[in-house]
Amino acid sequence: MQNFILQNENAVYYECGYSCDNEIFIKAGDEQFFITDARYGIEAKSHLKNTHLIVAQTSLIKEARLLLRKLAPKKLSLDPADFSYQSLKDLTRDMYFSLDFAHNFSQKKRIIKNADEIEILKKAAKLGAKGFNKIAKKLSKIIANKEKISEQRLNFLSAQILQKHGQLGLSFAPITAFNANAAKAHALPENIIAKKGDLFLLDAGIRYQRYCSDRTRTLELNQKMQMSKTQKFKDSKKNEIYQIVLQAQQAAINAVKPGVLACDIDAKARSVIQKAGYGKNFFHSTGHGVGLDIHELPRINQSSTEILKEGMIFSIEPGIYFEGEFGVRIEDVVVVTKNGCEIF
Amino acid sequence: MQNFILQNENAVYYECGYSCDNEIFIKAGDEQFFITDARYGIEAKSHLKNTHLIVAQTSLIKEARLLLRKLAPKKLSLDPADFSYQSLKDLTRDMYFSLDFAHNFSQKKRIIKNADEIEILKKAAKLGAKGFNKIAKKLSKIIANKEKISEQRLNFLSAQILQKHGQLGLSFAPITAFNANAAKAHALPENIIAKKGDLFLLDAGIRYQRYCSDRTRTLELNQKMQMSKTQKFKDSKKNEIYQIVLQAQQAAINAVKPGVLACDIDAKARSVIQKAGYGKNFFHSTGHGVGLDIHELPRINQSSTEILKEGMIFSIEPGIYFEGEFGVRIEDVVVVTKNGCEIF
Repeated sequence: MQNFILQNENAVYYECGYSCDNEIFIKAGDEQFFITDARYGIEAKSHLKNTHLIVAQTSLIKEARLLLRKLAPKKLSLDPADFSYQSLKDLTRDMYFSLDFAHNFSQKKRIIKNADEIEILKKAAKLGAKGFNKIAKKLSKIIANKEKISEQRLNFLSAQILQKHGQLGLSFAPITAFNANAAKAHALPENIIAKKGDLFLLDAGIRYQRYCSDRTRTLELNQKMQMSKTQKFKDSKKNEIYQIVLQAQQAAINAVKPGVLACDIDAKARSVIQKAGYGKNFFHSTGHGVGLDIHELPRINQSSTEILKEGMIFSIEPGIYFEGEFGVRIEDVVVVTKNGCEIF
Repeated sequence: MQNFILQNENAVYYECGYSCDNEIFIKAGDEQFFITDARYGIEAKSHLKNTHLIVAQTSLIKEARLLLRKLAPKKLSLDPADFSYQSLKDLTRDMYFSLDFAHNFSQKKRIIKNADEIEILKKAAKLGAKGFNKIAKKLSKIIANKEKISEQRLNFLSAQILQKHGQLGLSFAPITAFNANAAKAHALPENIIAKKGDLFLLDAGIRYQRYCSDRTRTLELNQKMQMSKTQKFKDSKKNEIYQIVLQAQQAAINAVKPGVLACDIDAKARSVIQKAGYGKNFFHSTGHGVGLDIHELPRINQSSTEILKEGMIFSIEPGIYFEGEFGVRIEDVVVVTKNGCEIF
């Protein structure tokens, strides 16, 4: 039985069904402990599963140290990226246990999703996609009515639609970028007004039962716009680039199956773009795991030697960007199945 | 000239006018460096002030290590709470400088606000207060029309109103709690429906030019509700408790002036509540600094020996909570002035 200590919100939620924004979780032998401050005591009590609640009187780290002294585990695993240098120093002040540095401890445990998680993530993706369709509908009307809308306003509107009146959370602040702003892979919304014919990139996700969705579509603003991947642009360069990105994404998706290396999925997308002469314009990785964290394992990049397994869930999102002009990215989340993958 | 390295978003923003969600900032001698990944490159370039941009090809920490090797500072200050154990290990792998552990490095620099910051924080507080008034108006109508509203729905609505159609950010997810849920100092919104006469606690803040507002009001739901601190409750216990919390807050506010210890401000609020016999029901600290971070220095608690100085800005927010029944908290943000304080 592995003894461990966690601090990351999603890592803690995964173990005991609750987390807030100030907690430490300890597993020692068969017992689980959740340490938080008084603000969260009542709520923690009603949500925690099979876990003792400790409401810290002083600092959480001090409370954890005192508890560990009582529990006296021989060895304690932790993720050295999950604790600050200061916290770890305070925790191990009198070192009565040996430390096991377990890199990506929780994300490794969570890399293969079980059937329940797959269902939740599929539902999250569906809810996210529905939001995208509603945004397209709303935006189509705005364009048809020749109303004005800025990136900032559209950003707010998109977040509002995606959250379904507060029934859902957001997995991150939506990216709503027009034209040149779409060339910034992670653009902050500006006070730029959109007009018919502009390029629009939407990258957004919701949270359903704390699990994330993630999706990107790039399209041309008009009164009949749709969030499908079949898109046409009046400008021939945009059209050409869009088709290359779509082919790159499809090539990566086609290659996904158990036993394949993550870096080979990245290579599939990258080589399509490189062959077309735009290798330098695709400056990020092809994808990332999606689960409780919006970015988790497996990483789908040039150096990831992770072997894909059934139940892994990740994004595939190649892009091509031209600074000062425009950018195109297309993103879906897939689950690795027995013989290939399913697009959510 | 102090050389230092930062990773915290707000700490970095304070130094160079920009930050995203993946960066390292280094100051060495007269020069400033901002290291980020390719997704943020274009945006960083247009926002950074007096700072060299480095777009990392591999990991940010590796890039920082290579840069430090070139810059060769003798001594480098950092906040040991700002870097994970892993990051610090990677950064100092070949240790060609001496480390100076500067606790709360950036928050200490930011503890006294300059005139511009005071203006921004005052404006933030005003915008936040306007949002509170709009929420009260909206909720009054809902109550008058005998419509139903749940905590969750009200939470979403409040966030929407506070953000003014996306013109403002939120400094944290609003707390919208009815009755017993208000006894949880930090309640998650539930699917509980409100009715006339229910107790309602709203704790929320906006972000204006990245600076935070923070405010809490507790009141009774009716068609004429207002967000002032003068409130009456039909239930005599709620009324009694409200008056005690209000007196406690006022006692603390009256005591604020340069030269006073932060713990003495906490003691002023706490002693009012203790004398009334509810000491155990006020289980959190009296306040916290507010600035770029929603919680920063100075801490206003029982052990804070910080000496208050002109230009410090913090919340004063005593509360009394009865598990399963209700809770009352009243919060304002104040700035220490020459002879006392000003409530924002």
